[in-house]
Amino acid sequence: MAIHIPRGTQDILPGEVEKWQLIEEKAKEICDRFQYQEIRTPIFEHTELFLRGVGDTTDVVQKEMYTFEDRGERSLTLRPEGTAAVVRSYVENKMFGYANQPIKLYYMGPMFRYERPQAGRFRQFVQFGVEAIGSSDPAIDAEVIALAMTFYKEMGLKKLKLVINSLGDKESRGAHRDALIAHFKPRIGEFCSDCQNRLEKNPMRILDCKKDREHELMKSAPSILDYLNEDSKTYFEKVQRYLQDLDIEFVVDPNLVRGLDYYTHTAFEIMSDAEGFGAITTLCGGGRYNGLTEDIGGPEAPGIGFAFSIERLIAALSAEKVELDLKNSIDCYLVALGDEAKDYTVGLLQKLRNAGFSADRDYLDRKIKAQFKAADRVNAKYVAVLGEDELKENKINLKSMDTGEQTEINLDSFIEKFIELSGK
Amino acid sequence: MAIHIPRGTQDILPGEVEKWQLIEEKAKEICDRFQYQEIRTPIFEHTELFLRGVGDTTDVVQKEMYTFEDRGERSLTLRPEGTAAVVRSYVENKMFGYANQPIKLYYMGPMFRYERPQAGRFRQFVQFGVEAIGSSDPAIDAEVIALAMTFYKEMGLKKLKLVINSLGDKESRGAHRDALIAHFKPRIGEFCSDCQNRLEKNPMRILDCKKDREHELMKSAPSILDYLNEDSKTYFEKVQRYLQDLDIEFVVDPNLVRGLDYYTHTAFEIMSDAEGFGAITTLCGGGRYNGLTEDIGGPEAPGIGFAFSIERLIAALSAEKVELDLKNSIDCYLVALGDEAKDYTVGLLQKLRNAGFSADRDYLDRKIKAQFKAADRVNAKYVAVLGEDELKENKINLKSMDTGEQTEINLDSFIEKFIELSGK
Repeated sequence: MAIHIPRGTQDILPGEVEKWQLIEEKAKEICDRFQYQEIRTPIFEHTELFLRGVGDTTDVVQKEMYTFEDRGERSLTLRPEGTAAVVRSYVENKMFGYANQPIKLYYMGPMFRYERPQAGRFRQFVQFGVEAIGSSDPAIDAEVIALAMTFYKEMGLKKLKLVINSLGDKESRGAHRDALIAHFKPRIGEFCSDCQNRLEKNPMRILDCKKDREHELMKSAPSILDYLNEDSKTYFEKVQRYLQDLDIEFVVDPNLVRGLDYYTHTAFEIMSDAEGFGAITTLCGGGRYNGLTEDIGGPEAPGIGFAFSIERLIAALSAEKVELDLKNSIDCYLVALGDEAKDYTVGLLQKLRNAGFSADRDYLDRKIKAQFKAADRVNAKYVAVLGEDELKENKINLKSMDTGEQTEINLDSFIEKFIELSGK
Repeated sequence: MAIHIPRGTQDILPGEVEKWQLIEEKAKEICDRFQYQEIRTPIFEHTELFLRGVGDTTDVVQKEMYTFEDRGERSLTLRPEGTAAVVRSYVENKMFGYANQPIKLYYMGPMFRYERPQAGRFRQFVQFGVEAIGSSDPAIDAEVIALAMTFYKEMGLKKLKLVINSLGDKESRGAHRDALIAHFKPRIGEFCSDCQNRLEKNPMRILDCKKDREHELMKSAPSILDYLNEDSKTYFEKVQRYLQDLDIEFVVDPNLVRGLDYYTHTAFEIMSDAEGFGAITTLCGGGRYNGLTEDIGGPEAPGIGFAFSIERLIAALSAEKVELDLKNSIDCYLVALGDEAKDYTVGLLQKLRNAGFSADRDYLDRKIKAQFKAADRVNAKYVAVLGEDELKENKINLKSMDTGEQTEINLDSFIEKFIELSGK
């Protein structure tokens, strides 16, 4: 009986994997230009990290984590997101003491959430994210947003919409929180049980509720923007001004909230409104978290970051019908006739590969016609044909598949000639 | 209280991660030259896959797997190795029906084994591996070995030792098995309990036992090479002949066994005998598995592959003191004096980055001297200085840190000039 792939996961196969490689190379290149360096944290962490770093009232932590005990009875969890582990590593490795500040990091790798599998939602998915920790200059908020926008634009996406908001500092959030409680409390019985729980714990998350979004109290709820103190207002104005300097269009949406306690100031989402992509879809979410390092046991340090799923980016590319520039040819395919010639190609092939060329030959003892077909299928730029007669005469026939031109080459100088002809 | 990284795992931080990136790029480039394409399978699989595909009598399966139930009560296991999942994907995606044959794949990613942590051994480690499925041409055995050797050599390793053996086909293995049982059975009581269990199940694995390796019956045990039938002998001779054609040195070691039932014909290991690396250490192990696709529920298909850990490769590079060519500079650092000039650099920085340059600025409101220091630390090739006076005059001062040469540039043509001067 065959064994199947686990539900909600996927194999990424040749033909599709090249897109992933291209996206990763682009992300790496842009992070280099923006001077964000890669960090790799383990696939699993102590469960405690996510309780503290994601929040034990969130759906992710309550319903969606892959949690298990290892053979030493430690509770481990497959990471559901990237920020908590990066901050754990920042604290554990005392990066706050590094000479270069702020610490600008990126990560890319699989994350895990036990969700109901549906189109475009996987239980294992890949996130790319960045974190800048150690600066509260509004220019770095703009830089982080610019990095995401630059990436999407250079990938070829056009139908992007950037939405920003400010959640203010602690004081502003506190004032807003009081106003929200005063607003909802008298009629909280009309809301769902989740919202009732949220009222005292984290009333801002009521604004995010999908069940109650049509309730009349939602539209009239107090806006965070009316509760920003002077510092928070100035900060938000600076971020907006820098985005204008960067020619990045945006809209301010006071309802864009991020429910976690540690979020402060800037929050943003990048959405795609490409046709055929269903409703407007969030590609990327991010924001400033000035309290997270302390929650995880480190010193105070302001941070900002974003994360997005590669799966969703690929869906957006496909919705916008972006053609990616994927290489799909090889430099040379060796066709051989007769056992001696076939054996000879083993060494010849390695010489081509040693010289930096992509090259291949037949491994199924196929007839010459089938070998030519194979060369065709892999889109060979050149086909080199070695028959028994050629081998005796120490020659090989090289055909350019672009021009059809054929050249007879002495076997001993094949590599030199190939370099010359292929113009590499 | 701080939260720590799980035992036996590691963060790979900037300063170290660049090695990993270089190794991965090299692996990818060489796989392209050899025409192996990437496949990505999930981090976890149904536990059943490894029981069948690794073998339920192995230490890995019995003692070292991270096995857990998901919320749907399925038994899942973090993959302890890569081959079983690649073969599962081969079968599930019916790759045996693809036009291009054989199927040549590579993978690279984290694997998990619950071992006692010790120097150089991690519970999460990264493996790079290749699998060629669908050909039983001995030339592809040589190709797979050549790929690994080419990779190690191009990474800069010199102290390599390739050891090969043949385990023969089913008939040869059967004859050898009978001979082993006859050899050990009379005195099996002198062996460890593991070996006693192995006697009937898989006597070849007795030869691999670490506890009993000094027992006198070990040296006099029948060699597989004496039991190879004609086909197996011819096959092994061809592999050796091709390795010679490829100028790859090797030694034949009849005691190199791979215990799993599905291994057939070629088995190989690449070792390092670099000083300071402890005893001679296996870097890479591989072999032919002509029965595995059937064990996993697919049609018969011959396969061969290898895998190695990146951690061990890095240890070998360090033991041989190989200097890797790691980039550690940035194209331009912007130094600004005064609030207006600082604000101005936000847009200027983005223009540099849009033009493909790596560039950065200060985000800590540092004095000019500290900004120059920061530029130094990141090894900036150019430093551009924008003061209040320069800004008024619409100029910027660009200094080459290589030559010390300074140029005053009109701000409006800064990017054009920078491209010109930096020669990009």
